[in-house]
Amino acid sequence: MSSTHVPVDSQTISFGDLTELLRQIFLRHGTSANVAAVLAQNCASAERDGSHSHGIFRIKGYLSSLAAGWVDGRVVPQVEDVGAGFVRVDAGGGFAQPAVQAAKALLIEKARTAGIAILAIRNSHHFAALWPDVEPFAQEGLVALSVVNSMTCVVPHDAQAPLFGTNPIAFAAPRAGGQPIVFDMATSAIAHGDVQIAAREGRTLPPGMGVDRAGQPTRDPAAILDGGALLPFGGYKGSALSMMVELLSAALTGGHFSFEFDMSTRPGAQTPWTGQTIIVIDPDKGGGQAFAQRSEELVRQMYRVGQQRMPGDRRYRQREKSLQQGIVLSAQDWVWLKSLAHC
Amino acid sequence: MSSTHVPVDSQTISFGDLTELLRQIFLRHGTSANVAAVLAQNCASAERDGSHSHGIFRIKGYLSSLAAGWVDGRVVPQVEDVGAGFVRVDAGGGFAQPAVQAAKALLIEKARTAGIAILAIRNSHHFAALWPDVEPFAQEGLVALSVVNSMTCVVPHDAQAPLFGTNPIAFAAPRAGGQPIVFDMATSAIAHGDVQIAAREGRTLPPGMGVDRAGQPTRDPAAILDGGALLPFGGYKGSALSMMVELLSAALTGGHFSFEFDMSTRPGAQTPWTGQTIIVIDPDKGGGQAFAQRSEELVRQMYRVGQQRMPGDRRYRQREKSLQQGIVLSAQDWVWLKSLAHC
Repeated sequence: MSSTHVPVDSQTISFGDLTELLRQIFLRHGTSANVAAVLAQNCASAERDGSHSHGIFRIKGYLSSLAAGWVDGRVVPQVEDVGAGFVRVDAGGGFAQPAVQAAKALLIEKARTAGIAILAIRNSHHFAALWPDVEPFAQEGLVALSVVNSMTCVVPHDAQAPLFGTNPIAFAAPRAGGQPIVFDMATSAIAHGDVQIAAREGRTLPPGMGVDRAGQPTRDPAAILDGGALLPFGGYKGSALSMMVELLSAALTGGHFSFEFDMSTRPGAQTPWTGQTIIVIDPDKGGGQAFAQRSEELVRQMYRVGQQRMPGDRRYRQREKSLQQGIVLSAQDWVWLKSLAHC
Repeated sequence: MSSTHVPVDSQTISFGDLTELLRQIFLRHGTSANVAAVLAQNCASAERDGSHSHGIFRIKGYLSSLAAGWVDGRVVPQVEDVGAGFVRVDAGGGFAQPAVQAAKALLIEKARTAGIAILAIRNSHHFAALWPDVEPFAQEGLVALSVVNSMTCVVPHDAQAPLFGTNPIAFAAPRAGGQPIVFDMATSAIAHGDVQIAAREGRTLPPGMGVDRAGQPTRDPAAILDGGALLPFGGYKGSALSMMVELLSAALTGGHFSFEFDMSTRPGAQTPWTGQTIIVIDPDKGGGQAFAQRSEELVRQMYRVGQQRMPGDRRYRQREKSLQQGIVLSAQDWVWLKSLAHC
């Protein structure tokens, strides 16, 4: 760890050291060694890539959910092989990421053999970004699509009350000339975190982001946070996609819908107790030229018509910078994380 | 066929009779018996369900594309079994629907055995609605997702020129208490047909639908049609989904991207020569309760929060009406279709 060349009120830390620090924190707050390693890697990767809303910002929520007994930090996911292309996992009320980890080798093997495979996770808590769940498949030459439902905060299009979660969709595909194309998008018009930030800064939101507690459209972030709700992105189309995420993440897996669990009896609980699905495709089984060459051609044409960057590129640039120069934390966060690791 | 109880300038025809009439038309305009039967069923179903933009409105484009020699109406799709969950079809420059038909039984068998299966169609022309390609799987208790790319007319978010097609995504899932939940959405902000209708009626479009030939945002439908282009729905998110459709429909299958074929040398050609992907999942392999019971619970909750109808319901209502009372065609269309069938 080094504090060279950074402002006095900040601390620069290597990715490896941040991962280790987070691992210690998870270990000391009720997780098994394996769960600690998986969550630390995930959370440090988000911080490294500039996904700050899913980096160390989440630690507080992780730890309070563990302390509340809402999520099981020690449970071992139960992986079931139920078909040539189907893997099922009961996460046992633990986090989703160790469930993905436990099934990953089998899922890849099935995708390569059968051409496509699906991982259906139930009884899981997903509190992280979704792109880390798909990017690794694309790094191995596979195409991956994942959906996860969350907790009621989005009003279906033309409805009067919230029902869906922010329900993200993530997709990853390899390309020959660069890092994989990866997107991770909430199906809500805005992320909850961005509403909180706007409220803190006293900013008005663009129209179409949310409603107040009476269900009326509002541009006031405070009104959205005070008993209001978010809207889906893109009107009825985003709403239909959010519904699809509920069906694939919960109905298909045996997990809860976003409206089916109640955290209110567990003060401190913050993590959505739902389900997740990952579909992995081996593009080598497709027709024609190598997939990565073809996706590179699409990228080339997107640049030609003036697209400034590919989905995922901002993360890759920040990643490179973080790996070269270290990850900058505020002094306050640094002291806080160290205290958590040694308490 | 009967003209009872309809205005004098219209003709009511049964679904069966319309299908047979369209079959005769396709047969007399260069398709094989099988292709004629498949396209007639598809096109009559769209008309029956009130999907007028993909019903008999499309006949002219089908026939002119056949007459131009742009699409092969007699080719037999070549189905390849390339894995426990992967079926590949070379449509041979013919229509996509006969390719789906040729692979369907194998795809369903694989989905039921492996838990998930994918159909990758290349070298195909898709000129129809996408929902008829997914709904039948849900009628058999399966979950289906399909994407198809089309032809350059959508400007990627933050780019300056069109590249993507209208690139629809269709999804179908069974439910216990009613017809399957089915959506079929273009990833463009508006369908091309709706721009044409607005231009004809002299209406101004809502903002965010398209750009003029200089790439400037416009609400004038005529400016969009005169060398302009459409925008994706939902900003960068819809644009990323449209990119995903290109990758899954073309890069994965060995088909053309939306920008890779040139119809200009074949006057009359209207059908996009691309690729299509269908993913079919057997939800019986998932965890927990029966899928259709769970999706019914989601539907129940969507109604509870005030959603007025489920995706697909408008079509089902029109379908029921058409099956009971017949399909109403204008007298002009009726005479035109009869002349096409007997020329």
